[in-house]
Amino acid sequence: MKLICSQTELNSALQLVSRAVSNRPTHPVLANVLLTADAGTGKLSLTGFDLNLGIQTSLIASIESSGAITLPSKLFSEIISKLSSDSPITLISDDSKNQVKITSKSGTYQVRSMDADDFPELPIVENESFLKINASSFANSLRSTLFASSTDEAKQILTGVNLSFNKHSIKSAATDGHRLAVLSLQDVISSDNESKIYENIEITLPSRSLREVERFLSSCKSDTEISFFYDQGQVVFISSDQIVTTRTLDGTYPNYNQLIPDDFQHTLELDRKNFILALDRISVLAEQHNNVVKISTNKRESLLNITAEAQDLGSGFESIPINFDSDDIEIAFNSRYLLEGLKIIETDSILLKFNAPTTPAIFTPNDDSKQFLYLVMPVQIRS
Amino acid sequence: MKLICSQTELNSALQLVSRAVSNRPTHPVLANVLLTADAGTGKLSLTGFDLNLGIQTSLIASIESSGAITLPSKLFSEIISKLSSDSPITLISDDSKNQVKITSKSGTYQVRSMDADDFPELPIVENESFLKINASSFANSLRSTLFASSTDEAKQILTGVNLSFNKHSIKSAATDGHRLAVLSLQDVISSDNESKIYENIEITLPSRSLREVERFLSSCKSDTEISFFYDQGQVVFISSDQIVTTRTLDGTYPNYNQLIPDDFQHTLELDRKNFILALDRISVLAEQHNNVVKISTNKRESLLNITAEAQDLGSGFESIPINFDSDDIEIAFNSRYLLEGLKIIETDSILLKFNAPTTPAIFTPNDDSKQFLYLVMPVQIRS
Repeated sequence: MKLICSQTELNSALQLVSRAVSNRPTHPVLANVLLTADAGTGKLSLTGFDLNLGIQTSLIASIESSGAITLPSKLFSEIISKLSSDSPITLISDDSKNQVKITSKSGTYQVRSMDADDFPELPIVENESFLKINASSFANSLRSTLFASSTDEAKQILTGVNLSFNKHSIKSAATDGHRLAVLSLQDVISSDNESKIYENIEITLPSRSLREVERFLSSCKSDTEISFFYDQGQVVFISSDQIVTTRTLDGTYPNYNQLIPDDFQHTLELDRKNFILALDRISVLAEQHNNVVKISTNKRESLLNITAEAQDLGSGFESIPINFDSDDIEIAFNSRYLLEGLKIIETDSILLKFNAPTTPAIFTPNDDSKQFLYLVMPVQIRS
Repeated sequence: MKLICSQTELNSALQLVSRAVSNRPTHPVLANVLLTADAGTGKLSLTGFDLNLGIQTSLIASIESSGAITLPSKLFSEIISKLSSDSPITLISDDSKNQVKITSKSGTYQVRSMDADDFPELPIVENESFLKINASSFANSLRSTLFASSTDEAKQILTGVNLSFNKHSIKSAATDGHRLAVLSLQDVISSDNESKIYENIEITLPSRSLREVERFLSSCKSDTEISFFYDQGQVVFISSDQIVTTRTLDGTYPNYNQLIPDDFQHTLELDRKNFILALDRISVLAEQHNNVVKISTNKRESLLNITAEAQDLGSGFESIPINFDSDDIEIAFNSRYLLEGLKIIETDSILLKFNAPTTPAIFTPNDDSKQFLYLVMPVQIRS
């Protein structure tokens, strides 16, 4: 392999694919990135793969001889990132010595390489049919739910986001057992392909991979459509010059729909930004005592009072205006759960609906066109 | 105590004094800041003190009743920092309940207080004579040497910076046994006071405190003079509205002058920025192997070659132009030590002087008006 490429482009590509390289590789070659130079297409392709998540991208290079090799991701990325962007970079692999020579205007580096044959192949999806999905809408699906997934590896299936595809719509959901975020999006799948096999499929993908997918989707131009392949426990996302693959999580995702009450006794309308600011301030006290915040209505003055008690340290009291028309109520929450969910909602006016201080409460945008729902279990108030 | 003040000013003052509050207080009151409100002067003064470092500042407040109280630094700072800057803050202490009520437009907080009498007094220097020192020059003295002090608590005296005062000049020095930084500054002490007791004094102050002193001095306007008091193991710096105190370190500072060679066999002239860039790149390899970089001259081509070997991983080679006129030489250093010292030097052209690959090497600005010297012990090269 022998080629010349731009420092800036190689650096960006390495930053991207190294996100799929494991920090604790189970095999030495998994600490490496795969470089494949093709004189025919004039492209250098880079791949990182930790056996779950795979990222592949390519850049234009002046390729004198084709070839494939792997280099240690961290060392190679650090060297390239510090080289001058004024000078092109030459890469020459010397397979007999197992090393690659990197030359820039100021200096020369030799890095120990490993054989490309040892590098695992990215999963290829066998079926040829795929969905065309709007990249920015899909990024929104992920962003709106990822935060609510569990970090507890003991409940593996809850460490992912559940995706249901149905004709033109995608429903994404995540829960950690204490709260649940659900977003339904219509018309995100374009109609110009009629892949019957994608009707009514439901998969759960690991959050760690989806954070990279979200980053990848967010970097696409706003009206880009990406191709989505699914087969036998593997998902592949393809844009014009990038491929991201991830395995699915095994197991049955809980039937979260049955957790969502149909009717509510109480509905409060409040300003999301004011509520966030008040919760953020009161959290300083709440953090001292299990993050518990108590909210109670003052119907006479149309106020919502938010309080936190930190036994020996102090207490806090905030109030914000609300619209409310049933009897005065009191309910307590984990302030961190509230803040994380409220930051996702896009409208200024929001609704808080619930039946009792011990049953699930629901936050939604006060706008029927936004199909987002955030369910939070209240905290028991000691009386 | 009852007063009204600005959120912005109280917040800045708290950020400042809380830097002198210990993270691991040996007594509960040392986790607190002292607030002293004086209706006579119309000032609220705040103090943080960890028994070594003390910081006091004050702000203008509308004081209804004078008083003094202490509040937990972290909790109080966090509450104040999140309150709206649009609204003034009211502080009312209720001494019978041991709490202070904080009121802003949106809410009310109660924080548990402790008695001001329990708070240790900042050291007061008995002698009335002091030096007037130029703040920005003194900040430069500290910045130029602090980085070379030791972090090894076993050699306590080396964890500080040594300061020698002599009429109008200050000489600062720091060493960790592997390298030594020395800066001499003339005319930084103004002549309009004739404090004999400050002639030829030498003190060593702890680096942790001096980092805060440096921050305090850098925040002063450029031609500000600060007052410097020294007495019995305590130093006090006073500017118009701030006081910083620190104890001195006990023990005799090593006679570093005897480490500095008088003559040198080799002198290289090189460009500091190019050298830093090359070292920074080569460090990626050097970090893999004890930070060792080897530098060798190529007299024929007027080049300095910089190399690093990371046994199984790879190697790096950089070269930069130099001026040099003795025989070709080879010497090795710890790249981290070189980079830290080179970043402090202010001139573009620098000199590297040494006698042999095993004796101390010295970096200086190539400008006689700059009295800075950085001595580094070379690393033994295995042959």
